[in-house]
Amino acid sequence: MVEKYYKSRIYKLKKELENKNFSSSNLIILKDENIFYLTGFYGKDSESILLLIDNDLYLLVNFIYLEQAKKTVRLNDLKVIQYNKNKYKKLAEILIDYNEKIIGVDGQNINHEDFKKLEKYLSNQNKKLISVIDAVENLRVVKDDIELYKIEKACSVVDKVFNYIINFKSSVLNKFTEIELANEIKSKMISFDAEGSSFDPVVANNEYSSLPHYLPSRKKIGNGIILLDFGARFDNYCSDITRTILNGEYKNYSRFKKIYDIVLEAQNISLDNCREGITCADLDKKARNFIKSKGYGRNFGHGLGHGVGIEVHEKPRIGVSEKTILKENMVITIEPGIYIENFGGIRIEDLVIVKKNGIKNLYKSSKILIELE
Amino acid sequence: MVEKYYKSRIYKLKKELENKNFSSSNLIILKDENIFYLTGFYGKDSESILLLIDNDLYLLVNFIYLEQAKKTVRLNDLKVIQYNKNKYKKLAEILIDYNEKIIGVDGQNINHEDFKKLEKYLSNQNKKLISVIDAVENLRVVKDDIELYKIEKACSVVDKVFNYIINFKSSVLNKFTEIELANEIKSKMISFDAEGSSFDPVVANNEYSSLPHYLPSRKKIGNGIILLDFGARFDNYCSDITRTILNGEYKNYSRFKKIYDIVLEAQNISLDNCREGITCADLDKKARNFIKSKGYGRNFGHGLGHGVGIEVHEKPRIGVSEKTILKENMVITIEPGIYIENFGGIRIEDLVIVKKNGIKNLYKSSKILIELE
Repeated sequence: MVEKYYKSRIYKLKKELENKNFSSSNLIILKDENIFYLTGFYGKDSESILLLIDNDLYLLVNFIYLEQAKKTVRLNDLKVIQYNKNKYKKLAEILIDYNEKIIGVDGQNINHEDFKKLEKYLSNQNKKLISVIDAVENLRVVKDDIELYKIEKACSVVDKVFNYIINFKSSVLNKFTEIELANEIKSKMISFDAEGSSFDPVVANNEYSSLPHYLPSRKKIGNGIILLDFGARFDNYCSDITRTILNGEYKNYSRFKKIYDIVLEAQNISLDNCREGITCADLDKKARNFIKSKGYGRNFGHGLGHGVGIEVHEKPRIGVSEKTILKENMVITIEPGIYIENFGGIRIEDLVIVKKNGIKNLYKSSKILIELE
Repeated sequence: MVEKYYKSRIYKLKKELENKNFSSSNLIILKDENIFYLTGFYGKDSESILLLIDNDLYLLVNFIYLEQAKKTVRLNDLKVIQYNKNKYKKLAEILIDYNEKIIGVDGQNINHEDFKKLEKYLSNQNKKLISVIDAVENLRVVKDDIELYKIEKACSVVDKVFNYIINFKSSVLNKFTEIELANEIKSKMISFDAEGSSFDPVVANNEYSSLPHYLPSRKKIGNGIILLDFGARFDNYCSDITRTILNGEYKNYSRFKKIYDIVLEAQNISLDNCREGITCADLDKKARNFIKSKGYGRNFGHGLGHGVGIEVHEKPRIGVSEKTILKENMVITIEPGIYIENFGGIRIEDLVIVKKNGIKNLYKSSKILIELE
């Protein structure tokens, strides 16, 4: 990816810091995903620091990431600096040459102990450390064209994998354990050109499907409900899908089908209402009120969806109390579910790009109930 | 796993809090791995809270994990409580019924913003929030028999996978990309009965092997260096291994072999000196001084090793400034490496149990240089 994308992100961040009265026009950035978004370098150990101050940019990394940082950073003006043991001490050594008296740090991505440590270093320089919230996360919610391209690629992998799974015969699927099917999903994502999974796939059979974050077990897959929730990673961007299907003859078919249709209708209502201008809370309510009206309100205990990008869960949260207004080129999941303890759960999830007058749904995978024979 | 293990951990934690003058005999625990260690419930979203106060135990979870928490908690006396949106508010509602004036929270596992939020709730009850460091992490360093059993299982999976890989012909390996080989490793771990990887495998060919945390690419594997760093997860416990091997004819063989032998000897020196009673710093120095004496001091930029357990990186850190004294039944990696930019890197890593008079090495995988033909 070319430098101009990163330059434009840094530029926007600076504007944001200046205009929005964040009380600090400089910023210490600690979260690996935020650093990747702004520089192209993606450390994975939460040990790097990006500093924006005046017109200068510093990236502090340890030995392990030094060579990788030099090779992947896409901003010519950025100075890559190695620290040895104490990254905050090194940071303070850099800051001493600047006159700024107020230094901003991302308060949600620094632990309390580290905040106190850094605060002490800076107070020795008569500088004050203040907490700045979500400055980079807020930029990341609206995706640019390169990001949309990568997310769409990650979604097309998912479509291919789902299509592969639903072509199994039930008798073949019965030979898999949940873990083995999860692994098959992971392998297929890679053979369809993803780097890997965006999270550990959920493969949940029957009553286990009522646990929204269930981890697959060594149990053989039996007839009945199979809830599949998985995603691929393509060039460090994520996708996320859920489908609930039936495997072979299923004794509780009619109860299942009734609930399936409610979840599907709730999802369709949400998709129909999703566009620039609606608040996250209002969109959530469209699905929630419908599910409530069918008597399953207390069985839909999570939010309707979430943003997806470099992280599989990022802003905005689509929930009852979230006032964010959707904007064009946000990328969000829409995933209502109904969960009944000791029976099972049904969730249907798509990933969509918010558009001015509607959405672009990134999946082709069918939502008509699939029954493997 | 039976209740007595968890009861004994809770008991030890309480003793620790009382004896060690942590300034607080109660504790708010936020890290998923610490909660799993103490209760048997393993949430994976950093949204659960465990509270130890007086003789009471509370686990606060959101809707997504409620059913799973009820099913997996192994302590009969623990109260599982669902919160809706604000976990800290719910926590404050519980704390109001207790007379304690000082409440401890793990300051390294709470972000600064959340600390301030919780501090405010508690100051309304005339309670003071204080930061407590590493109380649970310090308990986790010495493993009990069940933990050692699980780690050994995770290691035996790794031995099988390594043995599988080194039986490839060079001509077969040349058909794989790095990502495909990483995926083959992941698949094999599962077929050998692991739940999955303990981290994304590193498969690094030639000059890319000098990046210690390199991520595999879509490049075909060529002749020369292959650095393999991977680990399996068995019943939520990790293993971690590194071997550096050669694939086919390699033009830089003699330079490589010279460095390989230095790394191997540095590792053997460390293994020979590892036992109860030595400090982490002293153990690190055994390898580091040897590598320095051979002229590669600046090419060994990371610590000698780290603890492994529920997390693949946990305490203790085996590094130059770490004063921790090794104790029986700590489980640590020993992994010296030499990295040369634009040439490649060599690292050899074992996982060992520290014993009174030496170690138990958990791998059988050969360290004699393997050359695939």
